[in-house]
Amino acid sequence: MTNTLVVSAHPEPKSFTHAWARATVDAARGFGEVQTSDLYAMGFDPAERAELYGHEGRFDPLRVQEEAVAAGSLPADLAAEVAKIRAADLLVLHFPIWWFGAPAMLKGWIDRALVHGALHLVEERFEKGPCIGKRALICCSTGCRAAECGPDGREGDLRLQLWPLAHALRYCGFTVLAPECVHEVHGYHEAPTRDAFAARIAGVLDGQGALLDGLGDRPVWASNPAGDFDALGRLLPGAPVLSPFIRHP
Amino acid sequence: MTNTLVVSAHPEPKSFTHAWARATVDAARGFGEVQTSDLYAMGFDPAERAELYGHEGRFDPLRVQEEAVAAGSLPADLAAEVAKIRAADLLVLHFPIWWFGAPAMLKGWIDRALVHGALHLVEERFEKGPCIGKRALICCSTGCRAAECGPDGREGDLRLQLWPLAHALRYCGFTVLAPECVHEVHGYHEAPTRDAFAARIAGVLDGQGALLDGLGDRPVWASNPAGDFDALGRLLPGAPVLSPFIRHP
Repeated sequence: MTNTLVVSAHPEPKSFTHAWARATVDAARGFGEVQTSDLYAMGFDPAERAELYGHEGRFDPLRVQEEAVAAGSLPADLAAEVAKIRAADLLVLHFPIWWFGAPAMLKGWIDRALVHGALHLVEERFEKGPCIGKRALICCSTGCRAAECGPDGREGDLRLQLWPLAHALRYCGFTVLAPECVHEVHGYHEAPTRDAFAARIAGVLDGQGALLDGLGDRPVWASNPAGDFDALGRLLPGAPVLSPFIRHP
Repeated sequence: MTNTLVVSAHPEPKSFTHAWARATVDAARGFGEVQTSDLYAMGFDPAERAELYGHEGRFDPLRVQEEAVAAGSLPADLAAEVAKIRAADLLVLHFPIWWFGAPAMLKGWIDRALVHGALHLVEERFEKGPCIGKRALICCSTGCRAAECGPDGREGDLRLQLWPLAHALRYCGFTVLAPECVHEVHGYHEAPTRDAFAARIAGVLDGQGALLDGLGDRPVWASNPAGDFDALGRLLPGAPVLSPFIRHP
């Protein structure tokens, strides 16, 4: 049995993002418990700041987060997100790519819900992170063509656009799977043939069950493990280059 | 005379981020008009959504932004940001790096203030963008060592972390300069010698005038121009690789 947490971030309930997230929820119910965090529907506050903690004095987010965990005084919305993440075996993130990355709403969830002192500590990160053994799958969409998000694409490689998010999850210990992306989500390039567009989108939704069923065979998004770096955080000479965006000097 | 827009995003007014932003404001007054957008102090809302436009019906952000521009009904906060950007010759962004990128507050400013129909259009982007001739400088900070943000660093190359933000600015037509980053901003590694840390930070603040004076000689963050790509957005065979994260297939 797999406990799945589905986090979604799109301001339009009728968007493709939410239709796809619902397909994930429906499919995940077939193999265990499902939790959801529909960030816009929850009114999640993405802007980390002192007043959310009732904190007075200088606000150092990492310190205040850690102190709140130790004192058991984490804001209720963050405590709930931490509990969901701890209970989950699989995290599935659904969002549109805006400006070559996650929308601010989802970035705010990363900034706030990946609480320091709960889901990462200086001595517990990457392969020692609290989320070791959990898997994460990014399901995103773009309005552009797939070619524009290729390694030679004008918009930048999809993995370049998703890299900060993936690395944040890895930092907490998640195993990040190869992302799933639906391009041309507005169907502009298929405009003369709306039926073809509708059929393509329906195929994505109908196929989500099979996609989740196949996660065991899905490649992991390669990156160098912490052991490949020296005490200053530099790739050791002779270590293989596993991450697509790292290189020996 | 240069018109400078200083955008800052940190929840703590006494933070290094704000001290550095104030140093930029003070220095920029020496060569022209200065505008500021202190996003937390303004209570800027980073979560793009329908209610901010009084929009009913399906919410497609790009379409609603464009329609609001055409109708002259852009929300007042966005209209103000667009006017500031249009008036500016130089944009300076001040923020801490959180989770390998900009805080949600600044990402929300990108999501919302770079308004479709005003600061970019499908036919007016990159070298044809409305912000052609304007320069942008990113001034950010990290808590880690510089080595950890090098090309072989565990945290990921600084340009990798800043890439989505830089590319968003380029998309609108900005010339993006090489970023300025202050690492180890908490001084943990210098803890036994607090004076050394204080002197280092004071040096950054005192040096901001010289840094701005020298922008004319500052390298541009290289990236391939739109003309290097084919109609599908793929790098043309034989085109040079200028962006650090693009490669021929």
